[in-house]
Amino acid sequence: MDETIATIREHCQALAVEQVPLDQAARRVIREPVRADTDQPPFDRSAVDGYAVRREDRSASFRIVDRLRAGDWKPRELQPGEAVQIATGGALPCDGLQVVMKEDARVEADRLVVVQRDDARHIRFRGEDASAGAVLIQPGTVARPGVLALMASVGCARPRVTRLPRVLHLATGNEIVAPDRKPERGQIRDSNTTLVRAFLGQFGITPEQMRVSEDRASIQSAIRNPQSALGRWDLLLVSGGASVGEHDFTRSLLEEAGYSIHVQRTTTRPGKPMIFGSRDGSVAFGLPGNPLAHFVCLHLYVRQALWRFSGATDAPDFCVGVLAADFAAEANERETLWPARTEMAEGEVRLTLLRWQSSGDLTSLSAANALVRIPPNAGPLSRGFRLFFLPI
Amino acid sequence: MDETIATIREHCQALAVEQVPLDQAARRVIREPVRADTDQPPFDRSAVDGYAVRREDRSASFRIVDRLRAGDWKPRELQPGEAVQIATGGALPCDGLQVVMKEDARVEADRLVVVQRDDARHIRFRGEDASAGAVLIQPGTVARPGVLALMASVGCARPRVTRLPRVLHLATGNEIVAPDRKPERGQIRDSNTTLVRAFLGQFGITPEQMRVSEDRASIQSAIRNPQSALGRWDLLLVSGGASVGEHDFTRSLLEEAGYSIHVQRTTTRPGKPMIFGSRDGSVAFGLPGNPLAHFVCLHLYVRQALWRFSGATDAPDFCVGVLAADFAAEANERETLWPARTEMAEGEVRLTLLRWQSSGDLTSLSAANALVRIPPNAGPLSRGFRLFFLPI
Repeated sequence: MDETIATIREHCQALAVEQVPLDQAARRVIREPVRADTDQPPFDRSAVDGYAVRREDRSASFRIVDRLRAGDWKPRELQPGEAVQIATGGALPCDGLQVVMKEDARVEADRLVVVQRDDARHIRFRGEDASAGAVLIQPGTVARPGVLALMASVGCARPRVTRLPRVLHLATGNEIVAPDRKPERGQIRDSNTTLVRAFLGQFGITPEQMRVSEDRASIQSAIRNPQSALGRWDLLLVSGGASVGEHDFTRSLLEEAGYSIHVQRTTTRPGKPMIFGSRDGSVAFGLPGNPLAHFVCLHLYVRQALWRFSGATDAPDFCVGVLAADFAAEANERETLWPARTEMAEGEVRLTLLRWQSSGDLTSLSAANALVRIPPNAGPLSRGFRLFFLPI
Repeated sequence: MDETIATIREHCQALAVEQVPLDQAARRVIREPVRADTDQPPFDRSAVDGYAVRREDRSASFRIVDRLRAGDWKPRELQPGEAVQIATGGALPCDGLQVVMKEDARVEADRLVVVQRDDARHIRFRGEDASAGAVLIQPGTVARPGVLALMASVGCARPRVTRLPRVLHLATGNEIVAPDRKPERGQIRDSNTTLVRAFLGQFGITPEQMRVSEDRASIQSAIRNPQSALGRWDLLLVSGGASVGEHDFTRSLLEEAGYSIHVQRTTTRPGKPMIFGSRDGSVAFGLPGNPLAHFVCLHLYVRQALWRFSGATDAPDFCVGVLAADFAAEANERETLWPARTEMAEGEVRLTLLRWQSSGDLTSLSAANALVRIPPNAGPLSRGFRLFFLPI
């Protein structure tokens, strides 16, 4: 599995950069250093509602000479005995001031009477968060809400981000029908088209999808389709392709389409017959059609390609959790990826392995938020045993 | 804080149900029990590519009488000495069979020669995953990719889900300008509009947003705006509203608009002056304008309203992690929500508290994936100390 992941990472490179409006940059990867355009904050601002007075001026009462709202810009040199009313966020009129909180003073006629005064200046000083030119966001950062807000604050309104990959997904199989159709005898509904769409949707990617019958001509025509709105895709996913009983069906199709095949099976179950190939910077996966193997291959392998395409710094790596309960693993000579639920309690990452009946059983997948690595030939595992897992 | 959360939860109810196509149901909350429409799988299927023979028939070679692909439906009573070639997923032609894996046999002329035979039947039996009518998805489940795939497999192509809330967001302040504009002296860029949009976008919600200057008439007109595409919203968010130095500015505006005010401050910092009110099943929040407090209030409080609106079973509750390093908390009499990063390593949930300079400092928020509860009057906290946190 680790070798397969390394091979996939090796053959995928960060896609090109494009500029998008800030409100379309959510979940995208920033590809430029984002800098403070000015000192942050850009001027001395009051941190409270109150009254600005000279710091060394310990008068008991002051003459209120102005009222400043946030947004006002009215520089003036305050004199001893003078105060200006100032709102939170308002620009201080000069240096050397202190803001007395509204709650610590009262107004009598036009004069300010200070009831209580401590040493806190209640000012957010120019440049205290960041100096002009400082790099606030490193290239490779995923644009989460806080990142987007930070970009807005420094005027990065059209960030340079990685373009989204163009994805073509073919669900193959003579036995599959669309979810809204009633299967004939011998048929089942196709869940992989739905799964791929939702999986990619998490990354903001909308694939072009086709359900094609499993014969060479249909699939070749879909792959080569010159009418495709995509023109040329970065990622080709083929689900199924073994139901005619030819193990190398997808492999030979991909080879005919010009892909070099780098992986044709994995040592991990489920997902043994997975195929991975590349062609001129684009890559293709042949994914086993059964739902559990398909689900595991998407999260374990296709996810790696998406990560590399994105140019993000943080890799989708395994974490370590502890088993929440004893687990009698069936002995298997192959490493197994097991659907599980994680829970964060008492400082521990606890893993509960979910029961699954068969490789077609989607019920456990619907509850899973992790895939746990069960080592080859594992015996019974005790509560508290540490295992690697992939959050999904 | 807990009392505020309880108050918010109490005043928000699950919104109405609507039916949507499956590919638009991602991240929505399912509001009906989803049942298996037929036995799952609906017929006995081969789990491998191979040859079906009678289970008790231990002949050394067999006559191949048919070739079945997945999708074929060709019932026949196999006779002793007969085999049918069958592909993975193909329907078995009758009961009482076993599938010999392709790898364990060879074909000579038209006859099958079994090289190796074990007891495994290599059949996924009708109903082994679920019986017809069994509830596979409980109401209140969030439609993650695996849930959507499960719905596809049982023909739930137009699920009943909670409608999305209609949200109006007003960013108020005389000092704020749009991110693509250069602030005049005394002005700053508005980051809260971007933050709210990205925060709500995580839940598939697109708010109507307006940047309004902070005077009573502008805001009243925005709230009452009969031209609004929304007509009537479920959630009104007002950011800012204290920069004219009137603490009760938003409160009085909401009261004039018919809201009953249930919260007007919290005991937690940042976010002390937060306002929460309700009116005929809709709710409103007055959020402090400074970025850190605004961020905390969205994740800590507004998130609770969204959860209740959604009808989801799993609540956004606090988890427990351990401090990754000693932390010299500044003594503060109020409980503090501190931006942090979580890491799952060696079975532990480790919390690294992020430095922030001021309540306007967005740099720590851009890196945060958790908000940690620092108890009131906490002294220095040691590595390994357990703390509650909210994943964000």
